[in-house]
Amino acid sequence: MANKKTVVSLGHNALGFTTSEQYDAMRLTSRALADLVEDGHDLCITHSNGPQVSMIHKAMSELRRSYPDYSPAAMCVCSAMSQGYVGYDIQSALKGELLARGISKSVCTVLTQVTVDPYDEAFYAPTKVIGRHMSAEEAAMEERKGNFTREDPGKGYLRVVAAPSPLEIVEIESIRLLFEAGQIVIAAGGGGIPVIEQNCFLKGASAVIEKDSIASKLATDLEAEELVILTGIDAVKTGFGTGAEAALPELNIKKARELAQKGEFGEGTMLPKIEAAISFLEHRKDGKVLITSLEAIEEALAGKAGTVITA
Amino acid sequence: MANKKTVVSLGHNALGFTTSEQYDAMRLTSRALADLVEDGHDLCITHSNGPQVSMIHKAMSELRRSYPDYSPAAMCVCSAMSQGYVGYDIQSALKGELLARGISKSVCTVLTQVTVDPYDEAFYAPTKVIGRHMSAEEAAMEERKGNFTREDPGKGYLRVVAAPSPLEIVEIESIRLLFEAGQIVIAAGGGGIPVIEQNCFLKGASAVIEKDSIASKLATDLEAEELVILTGIDAVKTGFGTGAEAALPELNIKKARELAQKGEFGEGTMLPKIEAAISFLEHRKDGKVLITSLEAIEEALAGKAGTVITA
Repeated sequence: MANKKTVVSLGHNALGFTTSEQYDAMRLTSRALADLVEDGHDLCITHSNGPQVSMIHKAMSELRRSYPDYSPAAMCVCSAMSQGYVGYDIQSALKGELLARGISKSVCTVLTQVTVDPYDEAFYAPTKVIGRHMSAEEAAMEERKGNFTREDPGKGYLRVVAAPSPLEIVEIESIRLLFEAGQIVIAAGGGGIPVIEQNCFLKGASAVIEKDSIASKLATDLEAEELVILTGIDAVKTGFGTGAEAALPELNIKKARELAQKGEFGEGTMLPKIEAAISFLEHRKDGKVLITSLEAIEEALAGKAGTVITA
Repeated sequence: MANKKTVVSLGHNALGFTTSEQYDAMRLTSRALADLVEDGHDLCITHSNGPQVSMIHKAMSELRRSYPDYSPAAMCVCSAMSQGYVGYDIQSALKGELLARGISKSVCTVLTQVTVDPYDEAFYAPTKVIGRHMSAEEAAMEERKGNFTREDPGKGYLRVVAAPSPLEIVEIESIRLLFEAGQIVIAAGGGGIPVIEQNCFLKGASAVIEKDSIASKLATDLEAEELVILTGIDAVKTGFGTGAEAALPELNIKKARELAQKGEFGEGTMLPKIEAAISFLEHRKDGKVLITSLEAIEEALAGKAGTVITA
């Protein structure tokens, strides 16, 4: 039987917040990914990078305090660094975990840019927080540079950036070639580096792309059969956070939309995953989406945990 | 006529020292690379990362001064970040430059690890300086952690790491697949992340791999026909730095060895390039090595500048 072409999306909990947390987290993460490989999935892996790009952004700001000769690092540059950083840890841990199971497979990270529309509505109302707290003076300086900030009462000011929709994955041909050859590809980390087309050139945008949104786009572009979203809970639930939680083993698009409209799914947490699932299944009617946790993946592959969404 | 399979090695001067210098340097660098593409070369590009990995290493150290909760970033992690950072700037600038010339070609960066021998002699006498000057106390703490330092008289202490020889390029299958499909691949930036095999796993080593040495290894492994080394001077010269400099338009292995033995080539500058050329040509008798500068590439391709080395 041919392997199932699968895109996997990893959330914050798969990575941790610091370099040592991420290194440690890789034990569980690489086991979950290796379980998928052993179950017959060809993988393209994408991941979040919020804490990682924040850490790098902070580090590059601190560098300039002590060494003012260094120039600032734009968000796109920090995002590129974070793809290198996270991609390395995943590819190293997964390659090792597979070899330990007797599976020799190429694993690599492809640095990915994603075009966005400069007129995307998100640019007019930036909402994603990045970096450290700033003083009122620092915030005013950021605003003068054309960046956006918002007050975090009692704590100072925070820089906020837009989260526009992805248009095109610039390196999709490279990703596809590797994926179709059965190699494991880590791509579009942190949603990819958002870029805007200017004549022939691509210019980094002060923005971030939602990981779930790019996972769905990757799955569609690669004509994947499955999209696996690994997150902090083992299944999609109704009544989440109330005393009456109920896991949903199965969902279809219609039911998912109804529950979304009732406000069952948290904004910025489960809702974008459900939206990503729907968007993928609209393109691939016979596709399958699995939402579960790193810990529950083995049970989910046996049909005993997780939520399976179909058209 | 089929394209010439070519590995290109970029030195410090192709990149600059800070984020803004690197961004600016890309104009000239991407033009030189696009000239090679227009001249019928399929490219695999590798590059140095000394100043870049130093900058990131400094930034991650500064981060911990202000935010002690962050854990330290190992050299391998800083190296991975630098591959993301430099690879992004090259792939973005080159893709744009090619499109501006009407050439649509996939360009991507593959994050690369390279295995080294833990018993490599270089580990017993580390020589490559990384990071900022430290106080005697900080140096003593580094030594206690198992790292090496050396005194820089009057300025403090510097951390030094080993520069072992490359054994295997871990992601070579991914790089080869893309390269043979005619896509442009940026790989093994900064010599690749040096790793040591421990059972099935690869563990980051506190080391750096010489860029010229990995360029030669890449060219050999990819069965490239040409190796192009772009550096700060337009040709290999005898009497370099004396009043009687003479450019060498052509060299063969025998002549190159003779001149090397006479001490004509600077250690750590031209000598490793000559050694890389010889090593590649020993594997590929009909191969060709071109050593020239970014500025002189057009003339060199017309046979009017640079040094061509053959077996």
